Amino acid sequence: MRTTTALLTDMYELTMIEASLRSGTAQRRSVFEVFGRRLPAGRRYGVVAGIARVIDAVERFRFGSDEIDYLSSAGVVGDETLDLLREYRFRGSISGYGEGECFFPGSPILTVEGTFADAVVLETVVLSILNHDCAVAAAASRMTTAAHGRPCLEMGARRTHEQAAVAAARAAVVGGFVGTSVLEAGRSYGIRAIGTAAHSFTLLHDDEESAFAAQVAALGPGTTLLVDTYDVTRGVERAVAAARAAGGELGAVRLDSGDLVAQAFTVREQLDALGATTTRITVTSDLDEYAIAALNAAPVDSYGVGTKLVTGSGHPTAELVYKLVSREGADGRMQEVAKASASKMSVGGLKVAGRVLDAGGRASEELVVACGTHDAGRAEVERQGARPLQLPLVRDGVPVEEHRGPDALTAAAERHLASRAELPYAAWRLSEGEPGIPTRHIDIEADDDFPRI
Amino acid sequence: MRTTTALLTDMYELTMIEASLRSGTAQRRSVFEVFGRRLPAGRRYGVVAGIARVIDAVERFRFGSDEIDYLSSAGVVGDETLDLLREYRFRGSISGYGEGECFFPGSPILTVEGTFADAVVLETVVLSILNHDCAVAAAASRMTTAAHGRPCLEMGARRTHEQAAVAAARAAVVGGFVGTSVLEAGRSYGIRAIGTAAHSFTLLHDDEESAFAAQVAALGPGTTLLVDTYDVTRGVERAVAAARAAGGELGAVRLDSGDLVAQAFTVREQLDALGATTTRITVTSDLDEYAIAALNAAPVDSYGVGTKLVTGSGHPTAELVYKLVSREGADGRMQEVAKASASKMSVGGLKVAGRVLDAGGRASEELVVACGTHDAGRAEVERQGARPLQLPLVRDGVPVEEHRGPDALTAAAERHLASRAELPYAAWRLSEGEPGIPTRHIDIEADDDFPRI
Repeated sequence: MRTTTALLTDMYELTMIEASLRSGTAQRRSVFEVFGRRLPAGRRYGVVAGIARVIDAVERFRFGSDEIDYLSSAGVVGDETLDLLREYRFRGSISGYGEGECFFPGSPILTVEGTFADAVVLETVVLSILNHDCAVAAAASRMTTAAHGRPCLEMGARRTHEQAAVAAARAAVVGGFVGTSVLEAGRSYGIRAIGTAAHSFTLLHDDEESAFAAQVAALGPGTTLLVDTYDVTRGVERAVAAARAAGGELGAVRLDSGDLVAQAFTVREQLDALGATTTRITVTSDLDEYAIAALNAAPVDSYGVGTKLVTGSGHPTAELVYKLVSREGADGRMQEVAKASASKMSVGGLKVAGRVLDAGGRASEELVVACGTHDAGRAEVERQGARPLQLPLVRDGVPVEEHRGPDALTAAAERHLASRAELPYAAWRLSEGEPGIPTRHIDIEADDDFPRI
Repeated sequence: MRTTTALLTDMYELTMIEASLRSGTAQRRSVFEVFGRRLPAGRRYGVVAGIARVIDAVERFRFGSDEIDYLSSAGVVGDETLDLLREYRFRGSISGYGEGECFFPGSPILTVEGTFADAVVLETVVLSILNHDCAVAAAASRMTTAAHGRPCLEMGARRTHEQAAVAAARAAVVGGFVGTSVLEAGRSYGIRAIGTAAHSFTLLHDDEESAFAAQVAALGPGTTLLVDTYDVTRGVERAVAAARAAGGELGAVRLDSGDLVAQAFTVREQLDALGATTTRITVTSDLDEYAIAALNAAPVDSYGVGTKLVTGSGHPTAELVYKLVSREGADGRMQEVAKASASKMSVGGLKVAGRVLDAGGRASEELVVACGTHDAGRAEVERQGARPLQLPLVRDGVPVEEHRGPDALTAAAERHLASRAELPYAAWRLSEGEPGIPTRHIDIEADDDFPRI
């Protein structure tokens, strides 16, 4: 593993710098924007996640001698470009949606401003982080909505790339999860680590009783015992007995197979009949937001979610793109730009966004203002009474510490709760549908000195 | 980024060690197996990828003082377990399918043998690597099958976690891809890096002519010009002219939007009419194996694939599990073990596998022999005339260098080509179907001194 992020980059970003040095355009002031043309099919909102990781990645985007040596020996770019990269650090500014904020088609999630050379090289690493983390956070948000306040725990590390797993645990917390199985996420992000035992632990022992006794001896009677290795009814009996033999009441039983709804009722009844009324039930088998919703009628106390969480519950990537929307022209003035293709329409220009709220404080519209300057856009958002959505994240190359510091993750989870609560009811539905609120684009500079080309 | 892999681990693996130290079972000899109960729905074969990364991850699985401090301060495990972890290095042995080999339901892809404590802690990191890499390699293999020999290039870094992107590029090569956009994969794995320019490069310039001239000046007339920023027909004209102005013939044009089949024919005709008969056409817009198959009738020279490749083309994880299949009993003898749950059936016992071939050398069956020892299983595989599938990867804690060295990736790609070519025709079909060959389990120890419990 390397500490630099500089080669987590598509080669064409460097060849573009090389070519722009030839045409004298490498230093043109440029505005790149991260947005989604659409939400993943059927989704009603997106969730911004990964902002703190983006800030870190931008800071660590430096070409050291190892990186320069590779680029040189592989013939990726020539000496003039290598000289530029050797000195590279991002000197521009980044603003974006607060982490945890909901977003919609066309929401300008991130705005990167700098010279073309400064900003173009961040495309891949910024998109990698946001496309992954937003996809997981969106799935997490749907699951925590479905769970109606019952705790959701992230257990998907084994189903995704080993480093993606750590980022996924973090994104899950943005979406409302409260624990993770994977220890590196505990260390890196201060997330509560959870877990007790797998089936292999029971099978290691000569019988279930000795396995349970060992676990209770090591972890205390408040532990969670996995009761479905052999027969669930016998497992529950033995689990309660093991805790009591150690002088306590069992913390929880875990069910990891079979018909979880039916089992939850049976096991709850059995636990209550045994007097183990405080013993909780956690379920962990192939859950997604729909299974969680179905289990809400059952006496389940918490949900452990793996595969479907870390793979975005059917949408493993957030479909965000990184596009040049404005750049300095030959005359030194900024010009809006956009690709002409009908199938991949973009809206040019620097944009400021606000969430329009109705009289009851409920979101009704995503307002996206194409504008010449942040101030002009902000004024228009305020004039329309919308809640501003963008925050400064990097100023002239300097990270805004608040958005990546130790409190950033908790703040993101709180921001998400508030942002989701503000959406109209229809946005919370799990079924496939339209975006929860429409996006309205306006261009307050369309008729003046910021021509589209 | 850390160099150790030790915290890419689910917490329960460490609490299981803690509890097994209590019951005196931590040092029981154990056999864990990685296998899939099924292939992802509709898939006809799986592709083993990530073996070299597993070997590296096992070697780097060490708890340093930072890791121990975290585990201690977070109260994950107690002092006795921390002492064990401080000294931990994997001392057991690992065997498995060669990287690139095709696999089927029940194939024992990886067998990890050691004490329970030694082997149980590798569960998460081993599964993370294999579930991710196998999923991408399987998608890649379907795409290269569909491409019928036309080169496929990996361009999906921006659609997946930034480190997953690097592993995905590697797995794509196992599945037959021949280049990658992401530079870190070029550096780490020696994969050819590819890429020239994005739409932003054209939009940066005052017009398309000056953008193309700059790119040709920097990268030579043999470069690939992206011709669909404005009007494709004008773009092709200008692209050919830009190369000729620099004294050469254009290398290729890239199409990244619209109806690619129709456009490929139109552009080919236009190029030929312009006399640019050597100029190639590459296409890159939202491709998957079905789009590639449809494009095979069109005059396209190479495919650049992004999202669908790195997300496993609908199956982002390979559904592999890591299960205890055998362990030492109280009497010191090895015993087969398996969970009893009907919905998650496992087959106990150490297993040796072979691919049964018919008289024409075509695969007809995956033979999986549950056996007491590797030698007994190997003898049975040979007796049945099957091709043995497992290789030693780690011997008594020492990596077998051949399977992770600089030639391992090329060897894996070659192994995959040979293994896929050996499958029956039906296995190559892109449509959903049954596994290409059936799996037959036999247990040559079932009636003797390896009782199932």
